[in-house]
Amino acid sequence: MQDIEAFLIDLDGTLYRGKEVIDDAPEFVKWLQTSGRRYLYVTNNSSRTPEQVAEHLRHLGIPARPEDVFTSSQVAAEYIKTDGRSGKRVFPVGEEGLCTSLTEAGCEIVEDGPADYVVQGIDRGFSYEKLKKASLLIQSGATFISTNVDKALPTEEGLLPGSGSLAAAIRTASGEEPLVMGKPAARMIDFAVERLGVSKERSVVVGDNLETDILAGVNAGVRTVLVLTGFSKEEHVATAQGRPTVVLRSLTDLRRHVEGTDK
Amino acid sequence: MQDIEAFLIDLDGTLYRGKEVIDDAPEFVKWLQTSGRRYLYVTNNSSRTPEQVAEHLRHLGIPARPEDVFTSSQVAAEYIKTDGRSGKRVFPVGEEGLCTSLTEAGCEIVEDGPADYVVQGIDRGFSYEKLKKASLLIQSGATFISTNVDKALPTEEGLLPGSGSLAAAIRTASGEEPLVMGKPAARMIDFAVERLGVSKERSVVVGDNLETDILAGVNAGVRTVLVLTGFSKEEHVATAQGRPTVVLRSLTDLRRHVEGTDK
Repeated sequence: MQDIEAFLIDLDGTLYRGKEVIDDAPEFVKWLQTSGRRYLYVTNNSSRTPEQVAEHLRHLGIPARPEDVFTSSQVAAEYIKTDGRSGKRVFPVGEEGLCTSLTEAGCEIVEDGPADYVVQGIDRGFSYEKLKKASLLIQSGATFISTNVDKALPTEEGLLPGSGSLAAAIRTASGEEPLVMGKPAARMIDFAVERLGVSKERSVVVGDNLETDILAGVNAGVRTVLVLTGFSKEEHVATAQGRPTVVLRSLTDLRRHVEGTDK
Repeated sequence: MQDIEAFLIDLDGTLYRGKEVIDDAPEFVKWLQTSGRRYLYVTNNSSRTPEQVAEHLRHLGIPARPEDVFTSSQVAAEYIKTDGRSGKRVFPVGEEGLCTSLTEAGCEIVEDGPADYVVQGIDRGFSYEKLKKASLLIQSGATFISTNVDKALPTEEGLLPGSGSLAAAIRTASGEEPLVMGKPAARMIDFAVERLGVSKERSVVVGDNLETDILAGVNAGVRTVLVLTGFSKEEHVATAQGRPTVVLRSLTDLRRHVEGTDK
């Protein structure tokens, strides 16, 4: 991997776990900076704005600017922006990060009345009324977009319902499958690589989750590194839908691997 | 079908369509009464109490007492009552009809704290908070029961999200499949036949929906009549998962068929 120029790095389980930084994460990012490599923090989190994500990273000692962050809400906004359809009216089922990304991309947020898109992410204000509006709009022809279909969110309270559980409700009620923006969809990696201006051949996805991070890289045709600091364990690799190019214990091991000093 | 003693009759699409009675429904039920046949109104509707359902039927000119009505909420209550487990604490995701049936069956309704069951039906007060509580309780070992998994509710506003769409959210978040009480589960027909005290051989399910009514009858090993006054069309029969014993245009035709005067 000595030829890698760009790193698409996952957050939870890769740079931190909940509120705790993973020991070698700050040092790893500083090495990326000093060695002139490019990187983007690529997250399925749709509720936080890039500013909020960057602030959380800096709070943990990890260098981060808003422009270093790429969320699934931004992918949704990017998708709509570049979609050929003229209408940009969006009914959102989501939180602040989603609405901010959509507004910044020139979408018109509508709470009532017709819409061209229903864009859904994690929404802790989800209700039957929102489900009903979303379903009726989709049945009337609005395009159904889901920022990500993660089934559950690991938190200190336990595994809480993720964006994918809300997507399941809307899909069942409307009879339409969503266009998925976040990992494991290739779309997120495609947009990220484009944003960094680096070729796919010189990019790598780094993450802790075989089902989202690694599968997204595989789907997009980009090399992948599974770090064993989060969700997936080494024994899951053999049966995974998408297999990583390399499995490494830590970001420090990744640095050594890229530098060729692990031989 | 001249040997049939008991009729398990669906409501919407069979006796009425929304707020309008189907012309020959009152006369058909009166014929059942005067000819000494037994019947039960068997509905997946979990939000109304038997009293409310009976009142709606009487308003449409159809004879009905609360004890003639069997709802999917009552099946859930019956199931818990006869289940071997000692605890009867239930976290409900549902409306009045559900809570009433559960309370009448001796269940303890809990809004917070541990529960032995999560029982879910249509709930127009559904929220992320309820989804979260339900999912955490199921992950902690509570049995997940869904009154019915109808995907959508046909109304004057259009196809609104049905109980099945809420079940999909809870299933996705918790990773557990629900025990389904209503049609097409055989359970509902088994309980209904038991309640009427008639053998399965002498019973028939009458309904307008191949996917719920007819499949429930097939699953329970009971004869079925599809009436073409509601959801399913004759051309859907050939590809249906469960095939009706007889397809008839109307309840009047069913009466003639049972009397043997249609030859």
